[in-house]
Amino acid sequence: MAGYIPPIEDVSFLLGEVFDFNAQMAALPGFEEVDADLATSVLEEAGKFCAEVLEPLNRPGDEEGCRLENGLVTTPKGFADAYRAFVEAGWGGLSGDPEFGGQGLPRALQILFDEMLSSANLSFGLFPGLTRGGVEAIAHHGSEELKQKYLPKMISGEWTGAMALTESSAGTDLGLLTSRAEPLGDGSYAIRGTKIFISSGDQDFGGNIVHLVLARLPDAPKGVKGISLFLAPKFLVNDDGSLGERNRMSVGSLEHKMGIHAQPTCVMNYDGAIGWLIGEPGRGLNAMFTMMNAERLFVGIQGLGIGEAANQKAVAYARERLQGRSADGGCGPVPIIDHADVRKMLLTGRALTDAGRALGVWTAMQMDIAARHRDETVRQNANGFVALLTPVVKAAFTDFGFETAVLSQQVFGGHGYIRESGMEQYVRDARITQIYEGTNGVQAMDLVGRKLPMEDGDLPRRFFKLIRRDLAATAVPAELEMVSAAVGEALARLEKLTEYLLAKDADLDEAGAAATDYLRFFALVSFGWLWVLMASKATASAGASSLLKQRKLSLARFFASRLLPQTAALDTAIRSGAATLMALDSELF
Amino acid sequence: MAGYIPPIEDVSFLLGEVFDFNAQMAALPGFEEVDADLATSVLEEAGKFCAEVLEPLNRPGDEEGCRLENGLVTTPKGFADAYRAFVEAGWGGLSGDPEFGGQGLPRALQILFDEMLSSANLSFGLFPGLTRGGVEAIAHHGSEELKQKYLPKMISGEWTGAMALTESSAGTDLGLLTSRAEPLGDGSYAIRGTKIFISSGDQDFGGNIVHLVLARLPDAPKGVKGISLFLAPKFLVNDDGSLGERNRMSVGSLEHKMGIHAQPTCVMNYDGAIGWLIGEPGRGLNAMFTMMNAERLFVGIQGLGIGEAANQKAVAYARERLQGRSADGGCGPVPIIDHADVRKMLLTGRALTDAGRALGVWTAMQMDIAARHRDETVRQNANGFVALLTPVVKAAFTDFGFETAVLSQQVFGGHGYIRESGMEQYVRDARITQIYEGTNGVQAMDLVGRKLPMEDGDLPRRFFKLIRRDLAATAVPAELEMVSAAVGEALARLEKLTEYLLAKDADLDEAGAAATDYLRFFALVSFGWLWVLMASKATASAGASSLLKQRKLSLARFFASRLLPQTAALDTAIRSGAATLMALDSELF
Repeated sequence: MAGYIPPIEDVSFLLGEVFDFNAQMAALPGFEEVDADLATSVLEEAGKFCAEVLEPLNRPGDEEGCRLENGLVTTPKGFADAYRAFVEAGWGGLSGDPEFGGQGLPRALQILFDEMLSSANLSFGLFPGLTRGGVEAIAHHGSEELKQKYLPKMISGEWTGAMALTESSAGTDLGLLTSRAEPLGDGSYAIRGTKIFISSGDQDFGGNIVHLVLARLPDAPKGVKGISLFLAPKFLVNDDGSLGERNRMSVGSLEHKMGIHAQPTCVMNYDGAIGWLIGEPGRGLNAMFTMMNAERLFVGIQGLGIGEAANQKAVAYARERLQGRSADGGCGPVPIIDHADVRKMLLTGRALTDAGRALGVWTAMQMDIAARHRDETVRQNANGFVALLTPVVKAAFTDFGFETAVLSQQVFGGHGYIRESGMEQYVRDARITQIYEGTNGVQAMDLVGRKLPMEDGDLPRRFFKLIRRDLAATAVPAELEMVSAAVGEALARLEKLTEYLLAKDADLDEAGAAATDYLRFFALVSFGWLWVLMASKATASAGASSLLKQRKLSLARFFASRLLPQTAALDTAIRSGAATLMALDSELF
Repeated sequence: MAGYIPPIEDVSFLLGEVFDFNAQMAALPGFEEVDADLATSVLEEAGKFCAEVLEPLNRPGDEEGCRLENGLVTTPKGFADAYRAFVEAGWGGLSGDPEFGGQGLPRALQILFDEMLSSANLSFGLFPGLTRGGVEAIAHHGSEELKQKYLPKMISGEWTGAMALTESSAGTDLGLLTSRAEPLGDGSYAIRGTKIFISSGDQDFGGNIVHLVLARLPDAPKGVKGISLFLAPKFLVNDDGSLGERNRMSVGSLEHKMGIHAQPTCVMNYDGAIGWLIGEPGRGLNAMFTMMNAERLFVGIQGLGIGEAANQKAVAYARERLQGRSADGGCGPVPIIDHADVRKMLLTGRALTDAGRALGVWTAMQMDIAARHRDETVRQNANGFVALLTPVVKAAFTDFGFETAVLSQQVFGGHGYIRESGMEQYVRDARITQIYEGTNGVQAMDLVGRKLPMEDGDLPRRFFKLIRRDLAATAVPAELEMVSAAVGEALARLEKLTEYLLAKDADLDEAGAAATDYLRFFALVSFGWLWVLMASKATASAGASSLLKQRKLSLARFFASRLLPQTAALDTAIRSGAATLMALDSELF
C-alpha cells in the first residue's frame, strides 16, 4: 500500500504562483517576514511529520480504538507518544499568538497543515484542532487572567481543549440545553449537566484538558439568550500554573461510532465542576461562534484532507492493478487507470480536491487580511468573504471529501471493502465531517438564510463581482477558453439565482428548500473560478513544471465538462421552489 | 427506535392496480392460480418473518460478527436458529421449481420478498440469495444426476450455496483466474486454488454447502474461454442423499469488512476438492452468467431494501425529534420533519425507493414472461427487456440505496453516527452492493457497451417506445401534467443521447466515458415513467386509499421537480465525450 505524500508541489504553486502570497502577506503587520518559500519549507517539515509519524498510526488506531476503564481513557498504542512528539516539535502553536508563545504564522499555513493532519490521521488531528478552537474563544472573550493562565499551555499543546456543547436533546438547537451553572460567590461557578459527542473529552497524553462548556445561569431566560460559556479544566490550576485538584467532571462513556475510532468521543458528566465565565452572561453562543467559525473551516479542511489521501491511494492502486483490456484492443490485462470510467472517478476526486485546497487557502488569506490589514474597509471586505465562505467550505468540502472517499474506495473494487485496504476507513471517517460542527444542512441554511442577505445582498454580489473581474483579467490560453466561458455562464446563472432567492428572503421554507442545492452550486462556481486561475497561471508560469501545467490544464477542462454541468440541474431544482417539498402531510411520508 | 414495517400496502397497490398482475400471470402456464391477493397474503406472512425474526438480529449480528476458530465458522447468536426457522417455514423455495419441491411462485414475489429480507437483515439474506443463484446455474446447466442430487435440498434451503469466482488477481477480469481442475477419470475433478470474497462460504446452520467454483482444465486456453464451472460440495453426498466424507476444502480466513459483519465472507482454499463439471468444458462463464444475472437483480433489490429500511427509520425519527422553529415563526421546537431540507432528504429516499420497487416488480414480471409465455415473440421481447434492465437495476438501485442510506443517516445528525442508532450500519452494508457481483462501473459498461447495441439498437428503442406509449395511454390528472411533460422531455433527450452513443458504438473509451452517467440517466427516466403510472393509477383507483393517492401524487411531483432535472446535467456531461478523461497521462494523476 502506497503511503500518503504531502502535496508540497501544489502548495508551493498555490502560494507562489496563484495567490501572490508574498505581496498579500507583506501588507499585513506581523507577517512581513513570511513568504511562500518559508511557508513551503515549514509545510514540508510538517508534512514529513504527518506522513512518517501520524499516518502509520491511522489504521492501527482505527482497529484498536479507545477504551474507558475505571474512568480513565486510553487512546490507541502510539498516540500518546506521537502527541508528545507533536508538541515538542512545536506544531501546536504554528499559527498561535506570539504573545502567548505561538509562532504567529498565517492561517493559510495552518489550514494547509490541518489538511495534511487530516489526510494522515483525522482522529489525531482533532486533538490540536479542538485545542485551537478553545484558544480562539478564550483569546477573544476570556478575561486577562484566564488568558494568562490557559493560553500559553494550550498554544504549546501541552494542554488540550474540548468543546462541550451538545446534549442529547439539544444538538442543532442549542436553545434547548439544560446544563446549569451556579455562582459560588468567588467568581467561579459550579457546572452540572451531561454533554454528549464530546471530541477529545479526555485523553492519556498527560497535561490538562480545558473544557469549554455551555450552560445556563440560575436566572437565565429560556432559549439561546440564556446560554453562557464556561471554562472548566479537568484539573484545577494553581496560581503557579501547576496542576491541582481533579475537577468534578467524569467520562460517563465513550460513544460507539461509525468511524474516527481513535478519537475518544465522550459522554461527559459535569457534577459541580468548577468553571469560570468566558465573555458575558447570556452571550455564550456569541463566544462559542468564535470558536465554531474557526472549527467549521477546520472541518471543511478535514473533508479535503481525507479526499486528498483517498484519491492518492486510489491512483496508486489504479496504476498497479491489472484488469481488463485497453480500448485499442491489445491483449493482456492493463492497469485499470487506462479505463475511462476509472479515470472519471480519479479525476473527479482530484478536480474537487485541488480546487478545494485553493479555495481553502484563499479563505484563510482573507481571514488574515480581516484580522490584520491596516485599512478598515479592506478588513471588513475580507471579513465578509470569510463569513460568506465559512458554510461553503464546511459543507461543500466535506460533501466532496466524502464523495471522493467513496469513489476512491470504488476504484479498489472488492478490495476496497476489506478493512486492510484502509479505503473504507476514509469513508467512515469522512462521514462525520458532514455531520459535526453543524450538519451540512445547517451550513446551507446559514449560507442562504443568513449570509446571502448580509449587506442587503451586497456581500454575495461583491464576491461574484470579484470572480467576474478575475475571469476577465486572467490571460486565458486557447485550450482554456471553453472552461472560462463555461464558468462565466454558470456564474451568470448563480447571480440570477441569488437575486431570485434574495427576493424570497423572508420565507424560511423557500430558503430551506433551496439551501443544500444552492450551496453546492455556489461551491462549483467558486471551484470553476479557481480552475481558470490555476490552469492559466500554470500555463503562464515560468516556475511551474511542465507536468504541473499539463495536469492543471487537463483537470480544468475535465472540471468544466464533467462536473460544472451539475449547476444546470441544481438551478432547475432550486427554481421549482418549496411547494413540492412542503405539500405532503408529515404523517404520509 | 421504530421497527421495520414491510411495505405491504405498496405491494398490493403495485400488483393490484399498477401492473395488472392478475391478467399478466393468468397468461403464463403454471401461474394460472396466482393473483395479487394470494401474492399479497404470502408477502404479508413473509414480511412478518422478516420484521419479527430477522430484523431483531440485524444490529446484534453486526456487533458480534462471524468467527473462525479451528477451521469452523460461527455465525452470530440467533442466526442458525433463524435460518432453520426460515427453512421450516418453507421460505427458501418460494419461487423454486415444483419439480424439485419448490412452490413455483412468480419472480415478482421473490423479488418483493428479497427486498424485505434485505431491509431486515442483509447478511442473513445472502444465504438464501446465493443458494438460489446456485440453483439457477445447476438447473440450467447441470446434468440430470446433479439436479436430482442437489436441487431438492438447495431449494428447500436445507443445503446452502456459495459462488467461488474471485481470486486475488482476478476480480472483474475473470480471464486471469488460475484455479485448476484435474480430471480424476471417474467423471469427477480435483480442484485446486484459492478464492477470495466468498459470501456464505461456510456456516454453522448444518446441512451441506454447495460451492460453484470457476477453474481451468489442464489443457484449457488462456483467458475467459478456458474457464469451466464445477460443483464441489463441502460434504460429499452419498447415493442415498446422506452426507458423506468432508471434501478437501477449508476456510483460510474470514475477510474483515466494512459491513455485512454477520455474513461469513471467506477466503476459501480448495486443496484437491472433488467436484463435477456444470455445463460444458470452457463454458464456465456462460453457466456462471446464468446465476450472475439472477444475482445482479437480487443485489439491486438489496440496495432497494436497505434504502427502504433506512428511509423508514429516518421518517420515524424526524417525526419525533424536536429541534428548531417552524417557518411560520411559532415558538418552541418543532419536529424536524417540518424543515424543508429534512423533507428533501426524506422525500428523495422515498421517491427513489417506491419507483425502484415498481421497476423491480416490472422487471421480475418480464422474467416470468420470458420464461413461460406461449408466444415466442413475446418471450423474446421480454427477455430483451430483462437483459437491458439487469445492469440498470443492479447499479442504479444500489447507488440510490446507498444515497438513501446516507441521507437517512444525515437526518439523525450526530445520533446517526453512533452505532446504537443502526443508521450507520445501513450505510456500511449498502456500500457492498455497489461493489459486488460486478462493480457499478462494470454494470454501466454492460449497459452501454453490450446491451444498447443489442438487436442493432432496437432493444433500447423498443423500451423507450413502450414508455412513450404508456405515457400517451395514461389518463393523467391535471396535477400530474407537469410530471408527464417533464418525463416526456427527459425521455426525448435520452433517446437522442442513445442514438448518439450507438453511433460511437465501436469506441470503448467513449462507452466508458459515458457509462455511469448514462446508466443513471436511464434509471431516472424509467423512474419518471413509473411515477406517472403510479400517481395516475392511484388517482384513478377506486381501491387505493386517499392517503395513498396524496402520497403518490406528491412524490411524483417531487420527483419531477427535484430529481429528474439531474438528467440535463448528465446529458451535457456525457456529450462532452471521452477526450477530457483520456487526455491526462496516467503518471500525472
